[in-house]
Order: sequence, then C-alpha cells, then structure tokens
Amino acid sequence: MTATGEQVFDWIDARADDRRRAGLTRQLRPRGSDSTLLDLAGNDYLGLSRDKRVSGAAAAAALRWGAGSTGSRLVTGTTELHTELEHALASFCGAQAALVFSSGFAANLGAITALSGKGSAIVTDAYIHASLIDGCRLSRADIAVMKHGDAAAINHALSTRRTEHALVVTDSVFSVDGDLAPLPALAEACRAHNAGLLVDDAHGFGVLGEGGRGAVADAGLIREPNVITTLTLSKSLGAQGGAVLGPRRVIRHLLETARTFIFDTGLAPASAAAALAALNVLKEEPGRPERVRTNAMTVAMRLREAGFRATMPDAAVISVHAPSPAAALGWADDCREAGVWVGCFRPPSVPDKISRLRLTVRADLTESDIDKAVDVIIRCAPPGAAQK
Amino acid sequence: MTATGEQVFDWIDARADDRRRAGLTRQLRPRGSDSTLLDLAGNDYLGLSRDKRVSGAAAAAALRWGAGSTGSRLVTGTTELHTELEHALASFCGAQAALVFSSGFAANLGAITALSGKGSAIVTDAYIHASLIDGCRLSRADIAVMKHGDAAAINHALSTRRTEHALVVTDSVFSVDGDLAPLPALAEACRAHNAGLLVDDAHGFGVLGEGGRGAVADAGLIREPNVITTLTLSKSLGAQGGAVLGPRRVIRHLLETARTFIFDTGLAPASAAAALAALNVLKEEPGRPERVRTNAMTVAMRLREAGFRATMPDAAVISVHAPSPAAALGWADDCREAGVWVGCFRPPSVPDKISRLRLTVRADLTESDIDKAVDVIIRCAPPGAAQK
Repeated sequence: MTATGEQVFDWIDARADDRRRAGLTRQLRPRGSDSTLLDLAGNDYLGLSRDKRVSGAAAAAALRWGAGSTGSRLVTGTTELHTELEHALASFCGAQAALVFSSGFAANLGAITALSGKGSAIVTDAYIHASLIDGCRLSRADIAVMKHGDAAAINHALSTRRTEHALVVTDSVFSVDGDLAPLPALAEACRAHNAGLLVDDAHGFGVLGEGGRGAVADAGLIREPNVITTLTLSKSLGAQGGAVLGPRRVIRHLLETARTFIFDTGLAPASAAAALAALNVLKEEPGRPERVRTNAMTVAMRLREAGFRATMPDAAVISVHAPSPAAALGWADDCREAGVWVGCFRPPSVPDKISRLRLTVRADLTESDIDKAVDVIIRCAPPGAAQK
Repeated sequence: MTATGEQVFDWIDARADDRRRAGLTRQLRPRGSDSTLLDLAGNDYLGLSRDKRVSGAAAAAALRWGAGSTGSRLVTGTTELHTELEHALASFCGAQAALVFSSGFAANLGAITALSGKGSAIVTDAYIHASLIDGCRLSRADIAVMKHGDAAAINHALSTRRTEHALVVTDSVFSVDGDLAPLPALAEACRAHNAGLLVDDAHGFGVLGEGGRGAVADAGLIREPNVITTLTLSKSLGAQGGAVLGPRRVIRHLLETARTFIFDTGLAPASAAAALAALNVLKEEPGRPERVRTNAMTVAMRLREAGFRATMPDAAVISVHAPSPAAALGWADDCREAGVWVGCFRPPSVPDKISRLRLTVRADLTESDIDKAVDVIIRCAPPGAAQK
C-alpha cells in the first residue's frame, strides 16, 4: 500500500521490459510534410489523400462548415455533407442505404453490437480485424471462431447453433496477408441457415470490383437483404471515417441504436467532403483500382521470384515473412534508411504470430517506384528471409 | 428457415415498432452551412469550430498534409502535427505526456482496456459516458458500478476488492446533467487504496480550471502518478479527435498496447491542426472559459426562476426535465421551430430514464442570444414542465 499512488502503475514497467526483451517495442515515426520516402506502408491505395481535388475539398469544407461537426450525429453533428456522402456511397456501391461513422473502427463496433447481442450467435474467421474482434467481445453474443478461410466450418457452426439469430463476421480482404475471404460460400451458408453476414470491406472498397465498388459488390452481394458491408473512408478514399452499407431498415436501426454512432461526435466536415470528392474522382477515373491490383501483383511476383515468402495479393496488400520480430524490424529500418517505407507487423498485431513486412501499393506508383521498392527490399533482406 | 435471407433482420422491424410506440424514434436533422438557428445543442463550448483561425488552420493542413493520415499512428499515420499537438496538450494541461486518438470514444476504449483487464477491478460511477461503459465492458475486468456521485461507496468498493489492480473510472462533468464528480474525494480514495483514477474530462477541458485547463488540473490532480485524463478535441477545441493525458510511462504503454490506437487510422491532419490552433486561441484568450460558465449559470438561473427543473451547471451543460419522452421531443421541436436548437435526450441516452432538454452554452453567446433562448424555451414548454 502507498499513500502517494506512485506504485499504482509499476506493473507497466514490467510489461515494457517484457516487450523490450522480446524485440516487440514499438515507436512512433513522425513524418514531415516534405518526406521523400517512397511509401509502401500507408493505406492510401488510390493515391488520393494528397490529390488536390480531394485535399482542396477538405480545405473548402473546413472554411465553409467549420473545423468540427460540433456534436453527435443525432444532435448537431449531421451536416448536409454527411447526408450527401451517405447517399453517394450507397448509390456508388449499389446498397440501399449507408451511415457514416467517425472511423471504420467505430462503424464495426456499432454495427456488430447493434445487430447481435446476448442470446444470439456470432461466427467469425480467426483472422478478422481487431475492430471486428472488439465488436464481437462487446456484443455479449455467443462467439465461435473458425479456422481462417474455412467456409465449411462456418457453415457447420451456423447449422448447429442453438440460437435463433446469428451473424457471420469477416473481413473481405484480410488486413495482414491481403487474401480474400470466400464470400460466395459464406453468403450461401448464411442464406441457408438464416443468418446475417457482416463483411468489413476496408481493404476491398476502391480496389476490387467494377470501378472499385468493392469485394461485396464484386461478389454480387451488396443488395442481399441479410448482408451488411462496412468500409473505411481513410484508405482508398484518402480521408478519415467509416461507413456501414446495407438494407434500409438495418441502417435505420443503426442510426437509432448503434452506441458508437449515438454517443460519438460526428465526422469532421473536412473529412466528409474529402471522402465525397475522392468518390467522385474514383467515378471519373475508373481505371485506378485496376492499377492498384496490377502493381500489387507485380511487386509480389518479383519478390517471390527472388525467393521471398510473399503472399499472392488479392488486393493492395502483400505480406512478406521475416525470420523473427527483430529481423522484421531491422529489415524495415534498413529499407527506410534506403528511402522505402514498408510496414513491419509483429505480434500482437498479427494473428499467426509470424513477423513480416507488410507492403501496400498505390495506383500512382510508377515503374521506377516499383523497381526501387523491390530492389531495396531485396537488398535489405536479413539472412533467412529468402528461400533461395 | 428461408433460402433468401429476407427474414434475417425481421426482428429489427419489431424493435422499430417498439420505439415508435414508446415515442423514442430518433431522426437525423441535417443542417445547412447557412443555418440561422441559435445553437444551444452542440458542444462547441468556446465557439471555436468556425473561428477563422481554427478552420483556416484545418484548411491549410489539408492542403499541406493531405486529407487523411493514411494509416495507423504506428505506421504512416503520425505526422509532425500529431506530435506537436500531443506536446501542446500535455504542456497546456500540465501533464507529463499525451496521446491523440481519432475520437474521444476511441481514447476511452483504448485507455481503459490497456490499463485494466481480467483479474483487475474497475469501480465506476453509475452515470459515466457510454464510451467509458463500453471500455469497461471490453476490459474483462470485474466491474462494480456505484450510485451516482457517491465517493464513499467507491472508496468502500476499493477497500474491499479482492484484486491487486484497480481503476476508478468517472466523467469529470457528467454529460447529461452537467454536474461535477467529487474528484478530490475520488483521488484520495484511489491514493489510499493503491488504485488508478481515470477521468474523462470531455466536458471540463476548455471550460473549467485556470484558462480552461480542465477539471482534473483544477483539482490539482493532473500530475498525480496514478491519474489518467481523457478528453475530446471535438468540444471546446471545435475539431475532431480525442486524447489521453498522463504519466509518461502510461502514455508509452498506450502507444504500444491500446487497440484503438494501434488498429485505427490516425486523426486527419486537418483535425489535428484545428485542435492545435484552437488551443493557441485558448491560450491567447484565457477569458473564454469563464464566459461559458457565466452564460450557463445565467441560463440555468433564469429557467429555475421560471419554475423549471434545470440543473445547476458546473460547466457548460444544463439539463431541464420534461414530463415525458414525447413532451421532450415536442418541446425541442417547438423551440427549433422558433429558431432555437436545443438537445433532446431520451432513453436510452439518459442514465436515469428521465427525458429532458439538454442545453449547452457557448462563450460567444450574446445577451440577446441568451434572452431569446430563455424566452423561447419558456414559451414552448409543455404542460407540467414548470413547477409554478
């Protein structure tokens, strides 16, 4: 016991020591606005975050509407911009309706908790994003976690459940390896067993499907009465925020009951305007998504040809196995030193405990960008990273 | 069973019917940029959201840095702006360090889950904000909920707990009634029983304390080694986002382990820049917070004199009891019709099931604004709202 409170958080130092010993210390790397690093780490897949049409729309909206939305979406936090963005997102993807949240994380928490609960079942893929996991935890539903990519196991879990209501929760494109979920099989299982299907299309929207309409639209599921799609405005659209797309009654239900919608400040007008402007660019330049996919495949193939264990990318994300957490960190640091910024994912941010580089590509990478990136990654590789 | 999925969400229609019958239907009210409504509903307490210094900083940052932060704060999502804002927030409030999240909701989820867990105890006030409640639920800690405002009960719960680690979680200014938590007594209890104290100062920061340094600083607790403060950038600072302030080792721990920090896209540069600019205005014009408090007291006293059950405001928030959910909604609608926008809080957004108007004041309300607001609220009151 102490009367000063000094020792209350002593346990934190012990945890920090554990992380240091395991090579898992993390640190922020603030970037300047004039950074010349070649970015293969961010999620600005279409290269729109700094497009003048997008950043200009953000700037104009801040001046016109103010820097913040000033309140909950249900009080003062809904501007005409938010409504316009919701209509545009739903219409572009082919969904009945959409609801914008302040982040994709908030959209996932809000949708899962509002669409399930005590006495209902949730069946998930083992590799779903942290925000989906936290949504499931918050829901108080019975949760069954199935092996990654195993639609048959999910089908079996649905068919043997003891609850009336059930929701299957999955990413479309998994965030670490960039692989695609078996959406058609999952949809069939959900239809057969009267379950809802919630798909986080954060890494599919803007990259997959006709003109970037996303993985759910590409699978022909966007208008299914039991399918809910969540997405982010901070990846392909280069802004900030998240959204849920689905049947009108579901969106209405979220608007009235989702806690991360009701009890959160609405998205800033600048971010809503930027997302709207980015969506317009995407409509005008429907070839961008394909350039992302081509660039990803090019980078992955060249790394595989050089003997690296790189995933075959279904979208913009490529993961390259590293021999250890320390090797992954050193590899990423050396790439950065050589002018190429790559992501470094280590436990606990990976579902399989394997440390890796995580590469992302953009639509606006040039051939020489790709040459440089691949050369630097190969040149900086630690012993044991390549298999030949 | 169905093979089309049509009926999966039929239960949602039944819930909507229940809400309709109870008078609890909610709807969005999109506002135009040229709205002439007198706003007593938003949380822009210092009137800075549309201040040109603040919205101009947001616009300039969008143009310079792009519309989005492009990734997790641990990957590409930390710009020099984020770091500058963190230093400025910590320094202004007198804390050792600060960490910026994409929302106050995310800051609360991240801080609570990273600072507690299975085998630890959380003791809370019954009226804490939804984001704190959800943080507690996510934490898997043993949770004890004490009667509102009862520091002795919290002290007792701490003294009789069976766990080593414990965290007390409270709002500083409660969001519905605007009353202040007994922070000195809570801090004493936490010190005596070796517990952490997490205070959400969303409604205190910018309004209470010297120059708006907030309720935690005002209580002399901001540098206590066992005290964590969370706040929003979307209320007094007129922007978007949230932050956690506390001892350096705690902030370091959050940076490395808080799931809503690691797995969320960083705050948009425009919002970070706006918050930073607003903080600078607050430093240059330290009289703004007092004007908020004076305006709140004026409005509350005049409504009480007219016989309404208005709370005595400790900060910018006043709550006025209404006879029923339907009466509260009609009252708010009539005020709006008469040009004054007031909040209407009904179950389940209120902890005590009492429907009310929720009024907020701003530093930049004029005397004639206040006259108009009070007159309209009195004139539109439903039968039974006033006691004389």
